[in-house]
Amino acid sequence: MMASSSLSSSSTTQTQNRSPELRKDAVNNRWVIFSPARAKRPSDFKSKSPQNSDPNSNSSCPFCIGNEHECAPEIFRVPTDRNSDWKIRVIQNLYPALSRDIESRIDADPNGEISGLGNSGRVVPGFGVHDVVIEAPVHSVHLSDLDPTEVGEVLLAYKKRIEQIKGNDLIKYIQVFKNHGASAGASMSHSHSQILALPVIPPTISARIYTMKEYFDRTGKCSLCEDQPKDLQINVTTHFISVVPYAATFPFEIWIIPRDHSSHFHELDSEKAVDLGGILKLMLRKIAVQLNNPPFNFMIQTSPLEVTDSQLPYSHWFLQIVPQITGVAGFEIGTGCYINPVFPEDAAKVLREVNVQ
Amino acid sequence: MMASSSLSSSSTTQTQNRSPELRKDAVNNRWVIFSPARAKRPSDFKSKSPQNSDPNSNSSCPFCIGNEHECAPEIFRVPTDRNSDWKIRVIQNLYPALSRDIESRIDADPNGEISGLGNSGRVVPGFGVHDVVIEAPVHSVHLSDLDPTEVGEVLLAYKKRIEQIKGNDLIKYIQVFKNHGASAGASMSHSHSQILALPVIPPTISARIYTMKEYFDRTGKCSLCEDQPKDLQINVTTHFISVVPYAATFPFEIWIIPRDHSSHFHELDSEKAVDLGGILKLMLRKIAVQLNNPPFNFMIQTSPLEVTDSQLPYSHWFLQIVPQITGVAGFEIGTGCYINPVFPEDAAKVLREVNVQ
Ligand SMILES: Nc1ncnc2c1ncn2[C@@H]1O[C@H](COP(=O)(O)OP(=O)(O)O[C@H]2O[C@H](CO)[C@@H](O)[C@H](O)[C@H]2O)[C@@H](O)[C@H]1O
Ligand SMILES: Nc1ncnc2c1ncn2[C@@H]1O[C@H](COP(=O)(O)OP(=O)(O)O[C@H]2O[C@H](CO)[C@@H](O)[C@H](O)[C@H]2O)[C@@H](O)[C@H]1O
Repeated sequence: MMASSSLSSSSTTQTQNRSPELRKDAVNNRWVIFSPARAKRPSDFKSKSPQNSDPNSNSSCPFCIGNEHECAPEIFRVPTDRNSDWKIRVIQNLYPALSRDIESRIDADPNGEISGLGNSGRVVPGFGVHDVVIEAPVHSVHLSDLDPTEVGEVLLAYKKRIEQIKGNDLIKYIQVFKNHGASAGASMSHSHSQILALPVIPPTISARIYTMKEYFDRTGKCSLCEDQPKDLQINVTTHFISVVPYAATFPFEIWIIPRDHSSHFHELDSEKAVDLGGILKLMLRKIAVQLNNPPFNFMIQTSPLEVTDSQLPYSHWFLQIVPQITGVAGFEIGTGCYINPVFPEDAAKVLREVNVQ
Repeated sequence: MMASSSLSSSSTTQTQNRSPELRKDAVNNRWVIFSPARAKRPSDFKSKSPQNSDPNSNSSCPFCIGNEHECAPEIFRVPTDRNSDWKIRVIQNLYPALSRDIESRIDADPNGEISGLGNSGRVVPGFGVHDVVIEAPVHSVHLSDLDPTEVGEVLLAYKKRIEQIKGNDLIKYIQVFKNHGASAGASMSHSHSQILALPVIPPTISARIYTMKEYFDRTGKCSLCEDQPKDLQINVTTHFISVVPYAATFPFEIWIIPRDHSSHFHELDSEKAVDLGGILKLMLRKIAVQLNNPPFNFMIQTSPLEVTDSQLPYSHWFLQIVPQITGVAGFEIGTGCYINPVFPEDAAKVLREVNVQ
């Protein structure tokens, strides 16, 4: 979260209405989203006004039932019938990192190459779609409080929204993610997740495709279809398996992997959604019990929207859960290499053996 | 920093004496350091014992002058004369991420490929060197309080230690970094930095080499020797220029770049060290004034120890400073793509125009 000291400085305020941009420099070759509008978003946690700071109060929370008018426009709700109470709402993000209104400028600049701009960088206008999924109408209800079918409904809401967005040819990748707790980056405490649709394929995803291809070329197998070693397994359901990955970046990191090969999260059907809802709820409850209610993030790691036939056999989506219990600092920022104090087989044991009702 | 709740759990404690390991999986292809010993390190900031929590008290700080016996062994001090008081000490890290004692096991396994290990992963023993540089004898003195010559002496201490370590053929890359402030990951408040020498070339560095090569092949020029656009410049000295990079990952990120082409930080001579000391001090004071004393990290971005003749023309070291004012969350963890709310030209203006005495 942005320190208010720097945000209120006049020179940044001046440019907060500038459209977002994506830039890449000639050193790191990594897309960065520049989005001055983001600096304006409110925070439940670092708020200066005490009336906002009680995470159980719903009077000032725009995501609570009854406060719909304080939100950016709704895209759809579940159930869709507007006369009954809603259980889930998918709305526009009021402070979007990318803007859905600047599509036309992309067409004018199809390669995203603008010469003469600083540092020989490359730049594309910040076109994209940024939504919020409100997971429950009541402020104090968390995702892990829902039953498996209800968690499944949230997952199906992601799927429905992805299917709407993917019609736009300019969108290359759609990231679904959830931030829970202030030190996992959440600015709002009401249970929610986000969908950010991007005009580029982000670095982690292209690197993953490359690595999984290399494994496939060498072994003829998809690395996520392979049997997972017993000592890394946590739980197995009809359609999913949860593991601590062999080279987990973060302590107690969990991957929930579909047991049958599937490239895109949005292939999920209703039956699998309930099954995934159940194992996701179970994993969230297990980390809550074993790690003392840690803040966490989860990310749906799926494939780019356009995948060639030759890529399909080694593209396999999964859901990544990261409890936030260690920080990252200079070494990780500098090298992109992480230090994890907990061996994955030890973490898996801790998560496998705990009994949560 | 690791939450004590998870650390004290018996199953992680059991394995804290296991040697570190580096692992790479078949999905992300990214080295991760597993280092259970790290979990034991103390923290000035999240300590439960109140006597430790005053950042101005030196009674229990092992880095303070007079408490040398509480530290891991000293490697050298500045001045080297053991009869006078020291100004800088380079010591072993008591809770090293990598271990200097398992060198022999690397020889036995030169390719670092162990088959049959979980997830078809690759693994190498966690050999490496992890040191701490204590930058001043007195607890309350920060790096930016020193004068340019003294900051230069700290930089020359890094150089001296790098030159000692680089004799070992197993070491491929040496990362120098500094964490300042609890939310920048520092566990100790006494002014210090760290040197971590690795048996692998980390991902950020190999990606940078690749990108700078691509630029060089296309333009015939080193991308960091190129003139920096005026609107991104902050300050210029005889030998260095400071800029906000064109696609800065973090708000107010600063790079201090040598104006003459140089591949390795350890080529720094004494005259340039004083000049760099001056501009580093100036940048730290500028962010302190403009961003209200933020926590920060700095990293020396240098080249792998072994660089081929053909790589030299496009390998150019720099010092990267990252004030910690925004957090990262699910989107960044999931995609490796960052959202920066401040355009680099706006940040550069804020930093260029402030006057610090
Ligand atoms: N009335 C309203 N109507 C509609 N939308 C509203 C709204 N009020 C607030 N919002 C939006 O609700 C979202 C809440 O999201 P989160 O709490 O998960 O974290 P946020 O996106 O702020 O930043 C975290 O996640 C991002 C992405 O990972 C990181 O860049 C950042 O550092 C971290 O703090 C915000 O994006 C905000 O713009
Ligand atoms: N008596 C003693 N003698 C010698 N050394 C001693 C000592 N007491 C403590 N130390 C060492 O001093 C160092 C102090 O380092 P920092 O405060 O910069 O952060 P730390 O390395 O703990 O972790 C931060 O940086 C790392 C690397 O970026 C991140 O992984 C991590 O999450 C973040 O909190 C520690 O590495 C510690 O092991």
